[in-house]
Amino acid sequence: MTSAREAANREAFRRLTASEPVLEDVRPAIEAVPGFTRDTILTSGPTMPWSAYAGGQRAGILGGAQFEGLARDAQEAERKLAAGEIRLRGCQELGCVGSLAGIYTASMPVFVVRNTAFRNLAYCNIYEGTNRRRLNYGVYDDGVRDRLRYINDTLAPVLGEAVRTTGGIPLKPLMSRALHMGDDLHSRNTAASLLFAREIFEPLLALGARNYERAQKAVRAITEDHYFFLRLSMAAAKSIADAAAHVDASSVVSAMAFNCRGFAIRLSGLGDQWFEGPHASVDAVLFEGHTKDEITWMGGESILTETVGLGGFAQAAAFPLQKYQGGSPEAMVERNLSLYRITVGEHPDFQIPFLRYRGTPTGIDAFKVVETGIAPVMNIGVAGRDGGQIGAGVVKAPLECFSAALAAYSARYGG
Amino acid sequence: MTSAREAANREAFRRLTASEPVLEDVRPAIEAVPGFTRDTILTSGPTMPWSAYAGGQRAGILGGAQFEGLARDAQEAERKLAAGEIRLRGCQELGCVGSLAGIYTASMPVFVVRNTAFRNLAYCNIYEGTNRRRLNYGVYDDGVRDRLRYINDTLAPVLGEAVRTTGGIPLKPLMSRALHMGDDLHSRNTAASLLFAREIFEPLLALGARNYERAQKAVRAITEDHYFFLRLSMAAAKSIADAAAHVDASSVVSAMAFNCRGFAIRLSGLGDQWFEGPHASVDAVLFEGHTKDEITWMGGESILTETVGLGGFAQAAAFPLQKYQGGSPEAMVERNLSLYRITVGEHPDFQIPFLRYRGTPTGIDAFKVVETGIAPVMNIGVAGRDGGQIGAGVVKAPLECFSAALAAYSARYGG
Repeated sequence: MTSAREAANREAFRRLTASEPVLEDVRPAIEAVPGFTRDTILTSGPTMPWSAYAGGQRAGILGGAQFEGLARDAQEAERKLAAGEIRLRGCQELGCVGSLAGIYTASMPVFVVRNTAFRNLAYCNIYEGTNRRRLNYGVYDDGVRDRLRYINDTLAPVLGEAVRTTGGIPLKPLMSRALHMGDDLHSRNTAASLLFAREIFEPLLALGARNYERAQKAVRAITEDHYFFLRLSMAAAKSIADAAAHVDASSVVSAMAFNCRGFAIRLSGLGDQWFEGPHASVDAVLFEGHTKDEITWMGGESILTETVGLGGFAQAAAFPLQKYQGGSPEAMVERNLSLYRITVGEHPDFQIPFLRYRGTPTGIDAFKVVETGIAPVMNIGVAGRDGGQIGAGVVKAPLECFSAALAAYSARYGG
Repeated sequence: MTSAREAANREAFRRLTASEPVLEDVRPAIEAVPGFTRDTILTSGPTMPWSAYAGGQRAGILGGAQFEGLARDAQEAERKLAAGEIRLRGCQELGCVGSLAGIYTASMPVFVVRNTAFRNLAYCNIYEGTNRRRLNYGVYDDGVRDRLRYINDTLAPVLGEAVRTTGGIPLKPLMSRALHMGDDLHSRNTAASLLFAREIFEPLLALGARNYERAQKAVRAITEDHYFFLRLSMAAAKSIADAAAHVDASSVVSAMAFNCRGFAIRLSGLGDQWFEGPHASVDAVLFEGHTKDEITWMGGESILTETVGLGGFAQAAAFPLQKYQGGSPEAMVERNLSLYRITVGEHPDFQIPFLRYRGTPTGIDAFKVVETGIAPVMNIGVAGRDGGQIGAGVVKAPLECFSAALAAYSARYGG
């Protein structure tokens, strides 16, 4: 049994590391994502009944319904969601990946990323910009709506046109290089955003020769901050994690997600079943004027980056994160090193310069997590109970869902 | 006496750290650099008589004479240089800074950088590109000539036009940020080159709307490799170091330079006098197919970056350099830490994330160098005796020139 599991985990690791995510397109979810309908709203975490959604995640869903024109106001949205007239599903059921609350509606454009090594597709919608009040942080107001419309109507069409002229932008080379430039590709994407901008400059220059203003607006949106790449990293991670799912007898984690109720994982050998646990406590650095009691959970699936060997699993590549989310460089190195004890192998292409280019710990083995008691570490943005981002921090996954997953694993595979 | 020296060194340190280099223009040396003439050639290091130049540096000067049309061939160039019909001077005499052999001729475009805090100007010509055979590595052939012409005729005019439309690009913010992204701003400029590309892209987009092809060529040249920013870092360093020169009674190093004969420094309190010493041995990583006996010295003033607290003085910000020039991360940290013992203070804006954002050691005090026996450490490119770059490495400055400078300092200031 052990040897069958080991072989299965090697295969999952091979798929994680042989994956080749390529950005192919930017299109509205309704056009790009199979199974999306006009009345679909996606949100982070395992799908739950409408009544189970609370706080910022609930507020985000209501905001999404209004933005999409599925309801005139929050009350009508409440009614339609309760009646099932608006279809609510977890992002990952449709190959998508949600940032924080992770709200997707039909008209929202998504990055279309193909894992060319295994042919599967994944999607992520577009970063809302630097305003701390954002739909994915549970806020919907005029400013949020205008920014989302700007993405739909102005940014995404140009970006899509530029991407299509390239014939596809391979993301792995950008990601590998960004890890040598201080990014963890979850909470820090400063270098990757610039590397992506470099890829898209020339196509945008060509578009600009025909329509300067459109191209100029796109350039501004891509380069005005340092987070643009996060959604590409997330889409890439989803395309990689999905390729490693459904390996019979593998105990490797193939998905992780938060929703407002808790944390959940999937194991590769156990199909699409989620194993849920409580939330974890977070070590956070909060923006000025905010306090710990404001911290709230409204979902989040960007931790798929950790699932594929990035984020917290590459934190020793990203010492500048100490300012954003706290912790000393020494603690970051120690935490990063501990994660080699719960993973299958070292990533051949994602490397950490400070660790003499050692590959990041990749492929979380649920057995190793339970045996060692070492929980996966994740770099996350922190939401406040009144909506909006209030800081950033480090969380450890709760061990309960790993134990639950192992119980199901034993029930299915014995041993 | 000691207290006058300390006060003077604090003033030199203040000037080093309060400097604000801003890229203002890109123009031919003959137009931009006061004192440049049609028959001037600049080269790295203290000015020497023509007969003293040897090897790659001599070859580079002969190549420059031909490129500029000052001589039809090497023989004629030799004759004119010997006769003084071509005027040969050290780069730093004219506010310029030479990369390796550091050849400047009248038509070559230079970055014009103004230190707006102290009003002084500095200049550096433009990176020749990724070809290992380059004029500044002592090679002159058809390929080198064509590339230099391309810079003169195609790249620089567009770049200059774009830079002028910005009204000036402040370089210090880009440099500060690049240190958080794995650059040392001497041997690694990967992040800074991207950050600069981001600054220049919008102006290029506007030019591209009128003339697409010109703009597209400029974008290619700026983004095709990761070294473009080095010349801007050098010009910035020269503008900073010059601002800290000529502080009466200061023992802070205000310039460092190699030529083919050896290494030399200036002290702030001793004007423009160079204090010369032998070459140092280099710990290098050579490109495949090259051997240690090929290593040769043909000059170099990019070590002005070390003079202002960058390069070797920021190596713990740039762990990826271990691949390019050798050494472990631990050794880089240890070397970097040792340099705090020979410097006046910690730079308020140039910081090292791994050292918990400690400022880089800045302002080399010649007294501290001689007292501790700790030599400044510099990250450099390595030239081969047949011309061209053959690798990169770390050198320690020879202590002899510091002793010589202190003797002169005592003769002048007593004590």
